[in-house]
Amino acid sequence: MFIIGERINGMYKKVGEAIESRDENFIRLLARNQVKAGADALDICVGPSPGDPKDNMSWLINTVSEEVDVPLCIDSPNPDVLEAGVEAAPGKTIINSVKYDPEHMQKLFPLALNNDSEIICLLMTKKGIPSDLAEKLEIAVNLLSAAAEYGIDQQRIYLDPILLPVANAQQDVAVTFELMDQLRILTVPSPHIIVGLSNLSQKARHRSLLNRTYCAIAMSHGLDTVILDPLDKKLMKTILTTRILLNQKLYARSYLKDLD
Amino acid sequence: MFIIGERINGMYKKVGEAIESRDENFIRLLARNQVKAGADALDICVGPSPGDPKDNMSWLINTVSEEVDVPLCIDSPNPDVLEAGVEAAPGKTIINSVKYDPEHMQKLFPLALNNDSEIICLLMTKKGIPSDLAEKLEIAVNLLSAAAEYGIDQQRIYLDPILLPVANAQQDVAVTFELMDQLRILTVPSPHIIVGLSNLSQKARHRSLLNRTYCAIAMSHGLDTVILDPLDKKLMKTILTTRILLNQKLYARSYLKDLD
Repeated sequence: MFIIGERINGMYKKVGEAIESRDENFIRLLARNQVKAGADALDICVGPSPGDPKDNMSWLINTVSEEVDVPLCIDSPNPDVLEAGVEAAPGKTIINSVKYDPEHMQKLFPLALNNDSEIICLLMTKKGIPSDLAEKLEIAVNLLSAAAEYGIDQQRIYLDPILLPVANAQQDVAVTFELMDQLRILTVPSPHIIVGLSNLSQKARHRSLLNRTYCAIAMSHGLDTVILDPLDKKLMKTILTTRILLNQKLYARSYLKDLD
Repeated sequence: MFIIGERINGMYKKVGEAIESRDENFIRLLARNQVKAGADALDICVGPSPGDPKDNMSWLINTVSEEVDVPLCIDSPNPDVLEAGVEAAPGKTIINSVKYDPEHMQKLFPLALNNDSEIICLLMTKKGIPSDLAEKLEIAVNLLSAAAEYGIDQQRIYLDPILLPVANAQQDVAVTFELMDQLRILTVPSPHIIVGLSNLSQKARHRSLLNRTYCAIAMSHGLDTVILDPLDKKLMKTILTTRILLNQKLYARSYLKDLD
């Protein structure tokens, strides 16, 4: 299970303020704490903070890179901001995200190739997110083929089924498990499958309970990468427990000791 | 999700003492509390308590039946005790359990048929529990066919993959999810699949966490019936959350209100 910490996102009020005031210490602490809590990589998103988003992204990446040495997941709907982020990063990067849209792919697949980045690919087109399972699968196949045409190894792609909030898209959430079952038999070895977990529980109560229960189930259906809040201890304990139950990690009585 | 409460079992010290001293109040309270906590049925097992196990079983069943009106799951490795239990019960019963063993089936399938009981069938023979997935599936097919020959409807059978403790059979635990995926496509409609959940965490720490994480995952692979401790609130909350995520129950912000 590859865990990407979600906390450095300008959407959160305090992070937005830290970006605006260039508060390095706040960002560094958030980076360090997430890695200490078990994040294998960190998502970096400027969100709606004021100022030039490209400058904000570069500043965030420089600040985080001085503190921790993990891959950075450059997160923006704007290809120019993604480019600025990838070029600012001294180490390994993951582009978050590309959709099945020729314009998007023409810009971002070469960027990934030239910078040795991995890529999160959303199962959507510029028309939006299909609700039909067969259409989602078709987009997945098209994305993997398009990446291959650009010379990008399939194992560098992370397919993102786009997890919607259970509070208003319950049926879509339930279908993701079957979708993952189908996605993981598309290629050998299976493609990487990723979700942004917290979106599931937007506008819901019991957010951590919903998130961690979803995560455990999804891991058994092929989810191998996830963007989440690593500071949620109950979630991290559930992930470790799931790895034990799926025989991905050897059982020991003390298997939770680092989180207790 | 059909939930069978596990607490009335002579294996537990206090229950064993209550059986020995014929403490009706203790047993009645345990029955009432489990049903109040969400049990749809109650497992009844005399365990190693002293005295004639048939008498003990009849007494337990009479006591419980005077208190609650739910199906009783008559639990014994001894066919004579099962028979005594089924015959003592005034209401609906589930026989727990039958294995794929001609002698066992010859006695217990007619008993089920004559008393309109449902039956939990273990995926094992008298030689023991096979470790191979294909062998387990073969036993499942054989059990369903044998039951059909006795005129027992397939929907009255609950296939039990026999959940072993993760502490000493981690690989077997991990395989149960794939086994369930295969079991549920054996027939249309899918056969019922059941496990005795607490066995998973025998001799482990973090028992509730292991149990509830397993339960959530298994439900997404076809588990539709479970024997568990309904007084474990975290477990019951996880089950409700899983039902929401699988779209088996309509989401509402207050979906946990009865358990909060």
